[in-house]
Order: sequence, then C-alpha cells, then structure tokens
Amino acid sequence: MTMVSIALLPGDGIGGEVMAATVPVLDTLVQRHRLPLEYQVLPWPATEWHRQHGSMMPDDALDQLLGYDALLLGALGDPGPLDQPDRYHLPDSISLAPLLTLRKSLNLWACERPARYYPGVPCYLSDPRARELDMLVIRENSEGEYAGQGGRLRAGTEDEVATQLEVFTYAATERLIRHAFERARQRARERLDEKRVRAFTGPGGETRESQVCLITKRNAQAFWGDLYDRVFQQVATEYADVATHHELVDAAAMKFVQCPWRFDVVVASNLHGDILTDLAAVLAGGLGVAPSANINPADASVPALFEPTHGSAPDIAGRNLADPRATLFSLALLLQWLGERLGERLGERSDATDGIKSSNEKNRLFSSAGHQLHETLIADLAAGHPASGTDAV
Amino acid sequence: MTMVSIALLPGDGIGGEVMAATVPVLDTLVQRHRLPLEYQVLPWPATEWHRQHGSMMPDDALDQLLGYDALLLGALGDPGPLDQPDRYHLPDSISLAPLLTLRKSLNLWACERPARYYPGVPCYLSDPRARELDMLVIRENSEGEYAGQGGRLRAGTEDEVATQLEVFTYAATERLIRHAFERARQRARERLDEKRVRAFTGPGGETRESQVCLITKRNAQAFWGDLYDRVFQQVATEYADVATHHELVDAAAMKFVQCPWRFDVVVASNLHGDILTDLAAVLAGGLGVAPSANINPADASVPALFEPTHGSAPDIAGRNLADPRATLFSLALLLQWLGERLGERLGERSDATDGIKSSNEKNRLFSSAGHQLHETLIADLAAGHPASGTDAV
Ligand SMILES: CC(C)[C@H](C(=O)O)[C@@H](O)C(=O)O
Ligand SMILES: CC(C)[C@H](C(=O)O)[C@@H](O)C(=O)O
Repeated sequence: MTMVSIALLPGDGIGGEVMAATVPVLDTLVQRHRLPLEYQVLPWPATEWHRQHGSMMPDDALDQLLGYDALLLGALGDPGPLDQPDRYHLPDSISLAPLLTLRKSLNLWACERPARYYPGVPCYLSDPRARELDMLVIRENSEGEYAGQGGRLRAGTEDEVATQLEVFTYAATERLIRHAFERARQRARERLDEKRVRAFTGPGGETRESQVCLITKRNAQAFWGDLYDRVFQQVATEYADVATHHELVDAAAMKFVQCPWRFDVVVASNLHGDILTDLAAVLAGGLGVAPSANINPADASVPALFEPTHGSAPDIAGRNLADPRATLFSLALLLQWLGERLGERLGERSDATDGIKSSNEKNRLFSSAGHQLHETLIADLAAGHPASGTDAV
Repeated sequence: MTMVSIALLPGDGIGGEVMAATVPVLDTLVQRHRLPLEYQVLPWPATEWHRQHGSMMPDDALDQLLGYDALLLGALGDPGPLDQPDRYHLPDSISLAPLLTLRKSLNLWACERPARYYPGVPCYLSDPRARELDMLVIRENSEGEYAGQGGRLRAGTEDEVATQLEVFTYAATERLIRHAFERARQRARERLDEKRVRAFTGPGGETRESQVCLITKRNAQAFWGDLYDRVFQQVATEYADVATHHELVDAAAMKFVQCPWRFDVVVASNLHGDILTDLAAVLAGGLGVAPSANINPADASVPALFEPTHGSAPDIAGRNLADPRATLFSLALLLQWLGERLGERLGERSDATDGIKSSNEKNRLFSSAGHQLHETLIADLAAGHPASGTDAV
C-alpha cells in the first residue's frame, strides 16, 4: 500500500518538548483512523546538529525533505541564555536560517496563519466582540523584505551604512493575492455549511459573505505599494462575490486591537505578515495555540511545512512549561492539507498493489483525522484542561 | 520684545477641524500665561493648495518654515472618497509627501510618541494592569525603510519587479539610540519628582528605574539588525543606570498587547516605529488622543514639528466628529519643547530691548503653559467630557 510519509523536525529549545508531546497524539490518530501514514523524526535542522557537524542541516537536506509528503517543525533558535558559557551558542542569523531556507527553497510561497478565538484561552481584549475573531492571515513567504539582499559598507566603523533591499515581483504578488481570494471563497462555503454566515460590504454597498483585506504601506513605500494595489484590483475583478478592503499596516495593527471581528482573510507582505500574525495570534489567545502552514498552493508535489508560530523560547526550555497545542493545531492543519492535496500528490504513485484505498478515500481519512484533532483540541480548551499533548485525542 | 512665533498648518480633511478647535485654546493660553507668542495659520501643505498651485507647498516652503520656532500640523491626505468626482483627488504619494519631506528636510530625526493611559478613555485590553501603560516610543525619522530609494522595473507588466531599498547609517542610529537613553534618564527623574518609581531589571538582576527597549528584526534582516545591536550595546555602556532590553518587532507587537506596562522607552526604526506607535496609541485610548513630536534633539535652531498621530480621516471629515485632543496634546508637547529649548533658540536673538523677560523666565512660562494644558486635558478626560477643543483650558 502506498504509505504517506511525514518528517518531524523537533529543532531547538522547546521544539523538542512540543514534538515529544505530539508524537503519541499522532500515534493514536494513526491507529484510530487507520491512517496509511509513517513518520520519521529528524535530528536536524538543529543547533545540536550544528555543534556536531558545523552546519544546521546536512548538504542534501532539501533532497531528503522532498521525499516526504509533509513536514512538521517544532522550533529553531539558540536554546540557552548567553550567560551559560558551556552552551553552544549560535547567532539567530545562523540558527534560524533553515526556516527561511526551507520556505524559500521548497518554494512554499504562502504562509497561512489562522487566528480564531476559542473559549477557554485568555482573551486580552475587553470588548466581548473580540471573541468573534476568526481571521486567516496569508503572508507572502518567498521575497519582499526577506529577499536577503543588502550588506554593510564600512561595517563596524562609525561610517557604517547598512542596506537591505526589498524585492517584490508581479508573479509572486499575483499568485499570493489570487490564493487569498480562493481561500476567502472557501471559507465562505465552509461557514455556509456550518450555518455561520458573516456579512461584509461590497463596492456598491451590497452584502458579501467573505472579504479579503490587502495590507500595504503604500503611502511611504510606494514602489511595491503600487504593484500590490494594481494586482489586487485586477484579481478582485474575477472574484465579484468577495468583498475587498485595504488597510495601511499601521492602521491594521490598530484595528486588529479595536475591531478584530471585522477581518476575514488578510493578505500581507512577508514582514507585515510577520508582525500582523504575531498580533493576530495573541488576540486568539497567544502563541501557545497559534499554528501555521507554509504551503505552495499551486504545486502539490512540494511537501508543505507546518510549524507553531512560536519560537524556541530558550527562557522556558527544559522546564516542561511549553504548550504543545500550537504544534498540535499545526498537525491538524497538516492532516487537513494532506486531505486536500493527497489525491494530487499520490496520483502518480498509487498503483495496482494499492488495492485497499482509493485516493479519495485516503483524502477523507486524513481530512477527518485532522478535523477530529482540531475539534478535540477546541473541546480541550473549552474544558479548561491544562496544556498537555497526550490528552488531545 | 522677542516674540516666539509658531506656524499652524491645518492641512487636509479633519486637519482643519482639529486646528479650528485648537486656535481658541492657544489664544486662551497666550492670554492667561502672558506668553510672548504669535502664531500664523498657513494654507499649505494642503490638497487645496495643490489644486490651486499644482504643488502641495510653495517652492520656498522650507525657508519660510525655518523662520518659525515650532510647527503644529493638523493632518494631510486626500480629503474625500473616490466616488465624488467633483473632488480634487491626489494619490497619497503626493498628498502625504510633505510629511516625509518636512521630517527629512528639517532634519527632525527623532519622532517621539508618548503613550500613557489616562482614565476616561476607552481601554481595549482586559487586564487591569494595562492602565499602567506609560511608554515613550522613539522612532527613527530620517532614513531606514523610508529612505525612498528603489523603483519599478517593467512597471505595469506581468514581469514587474518593484524594489525598495532600506538604508541605515551609523550616525543616524547612534544619535537616535543615545537620545533614547537620555529620555529614559529624564523620565526616571520626572517620575522620582512625582514619587512614581518603576522598577526594571539590569544585566546582573539589579533594579533600574528606567529602561530602553531596542526593536529590530535582526533574525530576518541581519544587515541593519547587526548595526542596531552593536550601537545599542555601545551606547548602553555609558548609561549603566538604565536597564536595557531587546525585542523582535513581531514579539514586541505581541507584548504591547500582553504586557504593555512592562515598557518604558522603546526605540525603533522608521517602519517598525510607525507600526508600534499606532499600536501603542490604541492601547492608550486611540488616535483621538495620541500626539507626536518630530524633533532634532541635537539642534535647537531647527523648528520642531508637532502633529496628532492620526491622519486626515476623509470618512469623518466635515461632520464635526473629529477629536481635537490629539492636536491639543501635541500643542502641549510643543509648548513643553519650547520650554526646554527656547533658551538655546533665543540665545542670539534676545537683545537689550528684550528687557522684560530673560530666556529662563520664558522657558518657565512655556513649560508651565504646556504642563497646564496637559493636566487640563487629562482632567477633562477623567471627567468624561465629550471631545471638544474649547473646553480644554
Ligand atoms: C502618513 C504616513 C506616511 C506616516 C508615516 O508612516 O510616517 C504616518 O503613518 C505617521 O505615522 O505619521
Ligand atoms: C524566526 C523568524 C525569522 C520568523 C519570521 O520572521 O518569519 C518567525 O518570526 C516567524 O514568524 O515564523
């Protein structure tokens, strides 16, 4: 039978702990749902791997990862405070680099970070409507402010000039914005199924069931602001059923706090998305429950990468304080993504020996396992259970 | 007698309304405190000026402005919705450009945005400690992400590439960070006078009465992250009495919501500062009460520019809904700044005919007028008075 194989990458700091809490949950799901799934735990990317081998990942890491159907990462980053001289310390620019390398080299150009408020998690906002928060921030994941270009002239002197070049292309902008509109439609359909209709205002004042809000800083960074604007208007004409909106990134940060219930799908550049997703995560109860998906919506042959939005939290690592639920929510997204995309992925691989289950059936298996994990996690939160991985199924 | 002269620049949209509410307050203050102050209302920068003259400001605008001791701006930006064809519409890139031009050309390299919670304003956060919010965000105002360099290759086609170059220099970084430490010290002194001591943790766990938190995104934008880090550490050695801290901009956005009471002085790049000050403003009750000061701390000969943090709010302009208090709080900052810097400014101007008041006395006059306006505004908020300019003194 064609097995689906996923790689678990615990990484650094609390990454190991949250992954250790996730493995038994995954085992239970595999058994209970008879998932044709095998997994492997990889010792890299990790600071410990760097200590032993001089790099965060082996040279053929990308090739190896391409052999999996999906990836689940714990967290990366220097796992200890600087005043512990025995520790092996790496600057963030080295220890975190694999995150950006994986996103870029696997061409996972969209980062999806759903933020929905579930009863039982802390609510930082005083307005009761803040509990209606249900947004999906889609972040550009392949270029922009993270293009990695620039340098330091006369570095280390009093005449130093440091530059960082932001690079935005039509192609990357178009696919991102189109994906945002697709997701908006899909969310409206799903809400309809659950009889949870939301209302947004279309251009002529009419009602729309979903919305895409574009984020830019076009009043100060006009070069790419213009590009984003043009592409957004262009793509929007093909989605007359979706309401559109624009916010400057500074105003968006404010409105996330003032009226988070007004947003549906939000689409933003790499850096704006980075800031706004942390903000959205805290409004949904904090990083302890904030999952993320790095995907290539146009190419199911690339394994998607799922990770909690939190980092390696060196301050609490090793003290069993980390909340594994962001990783578990990410696993739920992973299973749901397999459910969506597996047919496409396995198309060429499934053969005559795979008599038991058709792709469609497999899709359903994974979808329902992901859905059940998600529902269990929510019920767990509502019941006020302490953060704990093994209770989650 | 040497008069102090300030320019009032109402600008666009609600700028006119908030300035109209501010003028009588200023008149009252001048009378009551016998301020040797005269003011002039300028019809530019403004969209209406552009309609008549083809540019937002006259060619000699900067020369004219340099003749004033301080500037108070209302707001800039296209004053009407796009579906009103009779209106004169300008893109933000033109109508807002004077803001950035004034900051850069007058070399007002620090933007100070105090955010303090005062009873009577809406509190968006549920944690009661959020009412202890009292931070000063100091934003780089002359370079960085707002350097304005870059362009569009193959603009308007499907092969477009848009770039935006971020430029950071040692000189601008050093003066900014040094100013942040100076302000931290000053705030600690002022708190001591008011017997409001705060405690922050120094490097060895000892207590410090003030703190500077540096914001970067050094894990993804290492070129200038390294520069900021190095300068911060260097300057900090000269301010052993001030605690230091670092946050990544995404984590900072989160912590502003989770524990805003932990921040004292926050120092950030132009774009990070833009986003974080809007966020801080909303935590302090919203843009209706958020003032800002664009200053050159090293050169009192340049007139500083004060402005509410809000924009021209075309959606509510002309309906008498705008809250003038952000402008009034900005006026209070302006008067206090004159109180601090007037001696230096007037040094060469005051002459024998100026027999009545020494610079020091004038300083005190302005400081106390600014202080009284500030206190009256706070009392007004606490009393729950509706937003209204003329009640404020
Ligand atoms: C209008 C805009 C260019 C400006 C900025 O980004 O600096 C504004 O948002 C502000 O914060 O003063
Ligand atoms: C670690 C860092 C480079 C990363 C990012 O900025 O993308 C992180 O903050 C995230 O949001 O996944």
